[in-house]
This record gives sequence, structure tokens and C-alpha cells, in this order.
Amino acid sequence: MIAIHPLVGIGEIRPGDDLSAILTAALAASDLLPVRDDDVLVVTQKIVSKAEGRSVDLADVAPDAEAERIAAITRKDPRLVALVLAEASAVLRAVPNVLITRNRHGHVMANSGIDRSNIGPGDTDRALLLPLDPDSSADALRDAVGCPVVISDSFGRPWRYGVTGVAIGASGLPSLVDRRGELDRDGRRLEVTQIGLADMIATAAALATGEGAESVPAVLIRGAAWPRGSSPAAALVRPLDEDLFQ
Amino acid sequence: MIAIHPLVGIGEIRPGDDLSAILTAALAASDLLPVRDDDVLVVTQKIVSKAEGRSVDLADVAPDAEAERIAAITRKDPRLVALVLAEASAVLRAVPNVLITRNRHGHVMANSGIDRSNIGPGDTDRALLLPLDPDSSADALRDAVGCPVVISDSFGRPWRYGVTGVAIGASGLPSLVDRRGELDRDGRRLEVTQIGLADMIATAAALATGEGAESVPAVLIRGAAWPRGSSPAAALVRPLDEDLFQ
Repeated sequence: MIAIHPLVGIGEIRPGDDLSAILTAALAASDLLPVRDDDVLVVTQKIVSKAEGRSVDLADVAPDAEAERIAAITRKDPRLVALVLAEASAVLRAVPNVLITRNRHGHVMANSGIDRSNIGPGDTDRALLLPLDPDSSADALRDAVGCPVVISDSFGRPWRYGVTGVAIGASGLPSLVDRRGELDRDGRRLEVTQIGLADMIATAAALATGEGAESVPAVLIRGAAWPRGSSPAAALVRPLDEDLFQ
Repeated sequence: MIAIHPLVGIGEIRPGDDLSAILTAALAASDLLPVRDDDVLVVTQKIVSKAEGRSVDLADVAPDAEAERIAAITRKDPRLVALVLAEASAVLRAVPNVLITRNRHGHVMANSGIDRSNIGPGDTDRALLLPLDPDSSADALRDAVGCPVVISDSFGRPWRYGVTGVAIGASGLPSLVDRRGELDRDGRRLEVTQIGLADMIATAAALATGEGAESVPAVLIRGAAWPRGSSPAAALVRPLDEDLFQ
């Protein structure tokens, strides 16, 4: 049995908060200590970003000509677009109401993952950027908490409606499980040979974190099995020129 | 807490097997009866296809000229390609070792979801097609078992390595959760407004089902929460001309 435990008692996170200490206290309050070898702590991007001070006051943003141009096409706030472009390594699609980018770490998503909802009371003109280096953030949390860590976000996908979970940071487990060369129980080579484990963990956690009013910002998944090894969420990023679907 | 329970005692499934009876017996053997309102039974595509007799002997397939042409491009078995094309409504990409199609239900995946691994001992020249109408298959299982049902598969995704779970059939829960118009706890309109619930359920289940030798063909997820309503997996399919990412 695999158990997905929502962590209780995590309040509003502010810049500079010691997230490791807060999560350790939440694990204790949720009766989940000591952590075990088959635990993964899944932390939503939002609280990592908040603790790392990645909230930006839009009043401080001066959009340049390119941001104004993309904002006119997408009908978005030029200040938000300026932030999206600063976080992006490429713009994949810009049409009315849609701005899809590849961010500096290679993840493809809407608006470079920048979120304007749920940032904090009264902050109507603030935007929250993704953590600067989510794999390193996961490493630091793992060192402090003592079990593998995934930093999760919710992305849309091509061809299907609705967001699902993705891992933007991971530490202590193989984000990508590579089974090339293994055989199935009838001795045939496996056709499915690579498994997006960290994305699957992030998605399973999202069943408990939810979105909006009843939001839970971290969960512990206990009892999942995975092969030995460790690879960061960066291992999940497929280079654009290798994409099978385009 | 959300629990993902692998179901024990499901043997090799053969054409014509009464899958509802087999799954009910497996739920009983796993000490999970009676089913509850917060249960979802997740059944992998493979056993649904097997029970529905969707296994094809490749010796019986006569590839036509188009199948031979695509087989030459993709370097795949022309008989397999003929089956892939018969299941497809469109070919999205055909290059060496890659054949991405949209199937008759709109799902985009490799090889129209046709699998050659793990079909059964000695069946080296057989292929297993997806169920003919997975949403209807889910309806029938739900009627018999008494709780919501998701029929799961594993698909690759653009831009990211590794497969994750997807729902190709669903009954008794909202496959797509639409939260447009709802507000977050600070009163702002939610930016993430549609959630791919059935795909998330399928992915969470895949943490327990695995692939290959230790394969578990069905799981019960207990304790997840979702809004009222019911929509089939077909609700997750975004028409090609609406795609945000292309």
C-alpha cells in the first residue's frame, strides 16, 4: 500500500522562512517522523518560491519593447510578460490569452510558471516566479529532512485538457527511471523503457494538495518503490531537437 | 490520507473472461470490500483489452501499401503498422523508430497504444490493441463493482522523457474538473481552472502497478476527494485545432 499523507499545520510562508524547519515540524505534527527509506516529501513550488523570496511587485517591473509587443499579442499585462520573458529561454507560442515558454531549466509551460493567484492577502499586484534552481532547492530540503524530495508544479499538456503534476525539482530518487534492456515476464524486451517517476510522484501528491481555497502545500508519500539511484528533475527535460511529437 | 492499494490475486486474463467478477474477487481477496464513496478502481488497459479479445495474431494481418510505406519510414513491422493505422484517425509523426498517432477516440500516443510486450507466454507474434470503447468498458465495470472506475494506460509526452499515466476510460467521476469562475482564498480568480483528475488518478495508480515482471494490473485508490459529477475520459481530449501548444 502506498499512502499519500497531507502535511498539516503549514501556515503562510514568507520570504526568508526556514522551510526545512517548517516542513520538519509539519512532519512531526502529522505523526510522520522518523522518515523512512520509502518516503518522498513532495513540496509545492509555491511555498518554495515564497520562502526564497521569488515574489515580485509588478509596480517594480518596467516592460521593454519586446514585452509590450508580446503583451499586445497575448492580451496580458506587459509587466507580467516582461517577467515571463526574463525567465524564458524560448517562446514556443504567443497568441491571444496564451503564452507558452521554455524556461531556463528547459521546462515547457504557460507563462514560465509565473503565478498570480494565492500569493498572499492584499498582494493583488504581485507575481510569484519559480524557484531559481529547484533541483538545488530539493537537495537542500533533502539534506535537512532526511528523505527524497520532489518540488511539484501543475502544467497543462498538449492534446489534453486539464493540468496534472510535474516535478520541477527532485533529490534522492531517480526522476527518470531507465529500464532499457530489461525483459518482461515473457522474455521480450520492454517497450516502455523510461518512466517519469518524479512527475508521477508529483501528480500523485497533487491528488492531496488541490488548488485554491483548501490548498495543502506539502505531502509525504510513503511506501512507493523505485530502483536505486538519483537523478534531478532536469533529467526529465527532453531537448527540443529530440522531441518525438513535433 | 489517500491510500493506493494494489489488488492481489489477478491471474493471466484471457479473452471472454468476466473481468468484473475477477476484479470483485480481487477486491475481496485484498480486504477492500465493501467499496466506499471515496474509492476509485483503476484497471490497466492491458487486462481490459485481453478480456475483450483485442489480441491480434500478426500472421493474420495483411499490410496494404500505405502500411508498407509508413513501415519503411519508421522501420517497424508492416503488420504492426497496419494495425496502428487501422486504429488511428490521424498520423501526427512518422520518422525512424517513431510513429505517433491520434486514435479513434482522440488520444495522442505512440503506435495507437498497441503493445507487443507481456501479452502472454509464447505469443511472440501477437499485438494487443486498446479496448474498442474504453469509456463504455469503464461504465460496465463501474456498474458491476459499484465504485468509480478509471482505465489507465502509459503515454509519453512532448518535451519530457518518460511515460506517465493517462486515463483512456472513466466512469463515475469527473475526468476533467472545471473550476472556472472559482476564487482562491484571497478572492482572486483561479489561474489553474481545469484539472485532469482522471489522468492524475491513473498516474497515481501507476506508482503501484509498475511495468514488466512485477506488474500489478489493478489498484484501488481510497480517500481521494473530487467534486460531484461524472465525465468520461473523452472529456480530456482536446481537439487538435484548439491545441494551446502547437
